[in-house]
Amino acid sequence: MVFEPGELAELQNRQVHHLKSSRAQSILSVLRQCLAVTGKPIALHEPCFSGNECKYVKECLDSTWVSSAGPFVNRFETMLSDFTGIKYVVATVNGTAALHVALKAAGVKAGDEVLCPTMTFVATANAITYCNATPHFVDSDERTLGVDPKKLEEYLRSASTLREGACYNTATGRRVRALVVLHTFGHPADLDSLKEICDRFSIALIEDAAQSIGSFYKGKHTCHWGIASALSFNGNKTITTGGGGAVLTNSKNIASYARHISTTARSPHQWSVLHDEIGYNYRLPSINAALGCAQLEQLPSFLEKKRSLASKYQAAFDGVEGVTFFTEPSYARSNYWLNALLLCGNNGEEERDLVLELTNSNDIMTRPLYTLMHRLPMFKHCPRMDLSSAESIEARLINIPSSPALA
Amino acid sequence: MVFEPGELAELQNRQVHHLKSSRAQSILSVLRQCLAVTGKPIALHEPCFSGNECKYVKECLDSTWVSSAGPFVNRFETMLSDFTGIKYVVATVNGTAALHVALKAAGVKAGDEVLCPTMTFVATANAITYCNATPHFVDSDERTLGVDPKKLEEYLRSASTLREGACYNTATGRRVRALVVLHTFGHPADLDSLKEICDRFSIALIEDAAQSIGSFYKGKHTCHWGIASALSFNGNKTITTGGGGAVLTNSKNIASYARHISTTARSPHQWSVLHDEIGYNYRLPSINAALGCAQLEQLPSFLEKKRSLASKYQAAFDGVEGVTFFTEPSYARSNYWLNALLLCGNNGEEERDLVLELTNSNDIMTRPLYTLMHRLPMFKHCPRMDLSSAESIEARLINIPSSPALA
Repeated sequence: MVFEPGELAELQNRQVHHLKSSRAQSILSVLRQCLAVTGKPIALHEPCFSGNECKYVKECLDSTWVSSAGPFVNRFETMLSDFTGIKYVVATVNGTAALHVALKAAGVKAGDEVLCPTMTFVATANAITYCNATPHFVDSDERTLGVDPKKLEEYLRSASTLREGACYNTATGRRVRALVVLHTFGHPADLDSLKEICDRFSIALIEDAAQSIGSFYKGKHTCHWGIASALSFNGNKTITTGGGGAVLTNSKNIASYARHISTTARSPHQWSVLHDEIGYNYRLPSINAALGCAQLEQLPSFLEKKRSLASKYQAAFDGVEGVTFFTEPSYARSNYWLNALLLCGNNGEEERDLVLELTNSNDIMTRPLYTLMHRLPMFKHCPRMDLSSAESIEARLINIPSSPALA
Repeated sequence: MVFEPGELAELQNRQVHHLKSSRAQSILSVLRQCLAVTGKPIALHEPCFSGNECKYVKECLDSTWVSSAGPFVNRFETMLSDFTGIKYVVATVNGTAALHVALKAAGVKAGDEVLCPTMTFVATANAITYCNATPHFVDSDERTLGVDPKKLEEYLRSASTLREGACYNTATGRRVRALVVLHTFGHPADLDSLKEICDRFSIALIEDAAQSIGSFYKGKHTCHWGIASALSFNGNKTITTGGGGAVLTNSKNIASYARHISTTARSPHQWSVLHDEIGYNYRLPSINAALGCAQLEQLPSFLEKKRSLASKYQAAFDGVEGVTFFTEPSYARSNYWLNALLLCGNNGEEERDLVLELTNSNDIMTRPLYTLMHRLPMFKHCPRMDLSSAESIEARLINIPSSPALA
């Protein structure tokens, strides 16, 4: 057979497109097989209110204590402390507020730099700017989706200077005060290794645990490694309070500071209204905490269902060539908050977008990774290391429906 | 009768103390007469959930849309727009968030100064610092409890410089970008005069309407004069959403900007997660908005009850010498959010504290004015004009129970 010039290339292009397209079709059919197709669109993550939600909210309304002074706030905090094993919990209005407070509690000050994965939700980087500090982006490990400890260590060795027990960015001269690590989609980052590096370089570790309630690292709940950690209870999370979050810490001093600045830094007095520093209106209202108490009661059953859905996905995608269902790192027991597929090879965003188009147009909601932080206009001038691993993951990752009710 | 040296002075002191003490007793007995004494402590302001609160919250839970994307948020915003007559409403997580967004929407930038009454709740001054701007404290008028227009104008004439259509603090060289006025305890400030001054000095006017839902200035709801205004629905306000607030504006552009930065500055896309500037997680969750819809339905009846309680107080305190019950300015119809007494004369804080002690120890909650902003440690170095009127009010003002259920 003889081809005209260009004809062969075109034929090859078509074959590649055909292959990608048939892979997208396979993914759609596996999703359909795993999920009960009801005719209604399948969301990425929907909450489930099958417990005492109405009862507790009614109790809260009957008491008239619906704001942050209400009894459900204490109850929710105690329940969270019991579940995670972390001593102190300060419930906040959302996860962003919790991150902001955790950063301040860890000592982040104006002019500092804070290491932060480029592969995170925008709240992590935004919260750093609320402290008038600069995010400094680091790369992630494809095996954990968390900050890559090995790459971080090499980078700090080459790009930072230790002086009088503090770490400085050699290029900018600014203090590198903290590292925030995200437990991406509920999969714990490699906390032991990261903590060890932070200690060695005099950097405070903060856990962005917005996605990891119910996720354990080497048998212990996430949030035990950071000087402070932040949870989120947004509507798309494993448990929800409508909007809500929490700062967790094992330090009594950090807890009282977090509580103080979250409550407009008001000093206690029988009637006087006095404040001793710049504070925030960040405490969770009691009505949202009432919802949270009911949700926390169901957390073990949600986790079981989410892990069972993940197992179903894992088995079903095992037979699909060119696609990997992301599973928990060996050291972890994950909540599988948002399930993720990784397309293999280096076919770029084209194949990913084909899958996104096909599934979304067929009423199965899927989503790519968050746009990497260093690509966003307000962060593109921030310092960063080589981010090739995150960039490769970004081109290949797809989140798929993960609600507990789908199990 | 002959007195030993010092004896006369001591006798006079005792007489003054006796007078103050008997005035405190009179105030207590008038309060007891106005309020149904049930044996339970009487709070300063308690919410009332006698409408569709439970029904709407249940509807919200049944829909599973409990976060900021839920339908109750739109409904609450539309109801607020209908009630106030302001075109655009962006519901926020609380009043502090609304103030922060209103300031940014009015163009407040890092390094600016923002005029702000020293007689306000700390959130007003805090929100200015969140913009990295500096509060610049101004005095209040005893007849309105709002910013004193005459004194402000004289001060601006002497302390500011107009240059290329912008106002600068002559002493610091910083731009005076905006004035925030509080409608104290629900009593509208003199908006026409203040707006006129702002226009003349090229200063943006922002209304801190945290306390003034249902308060009208010359027949129009407060919030019509500012480029943007902020409401609060905290648990102690006339209506509550647990925690909540709203930005109100008649400008379409300001409204879309406020909505955008309150929603993490996320750009719309079917599935991509993209953000185009530093944003905030400030939107009100739907479950709180559901509560707000039920509360707004009852607002007219709450306002009627609150005005009726105020009338009762006014009549009863009419006969007590040395005490004035604060009534709405002649141009206004106030919501009487927090009722206030003003002690006459110049007896200082001693008499006020006697009243506070006597009433609080008798289970009738009363409170002094917020500590003036320029006395708080984090604001004491901020620029300010003469604040003698606010200082005089501070020594003499007492808030008394104001819940609608007390009418």
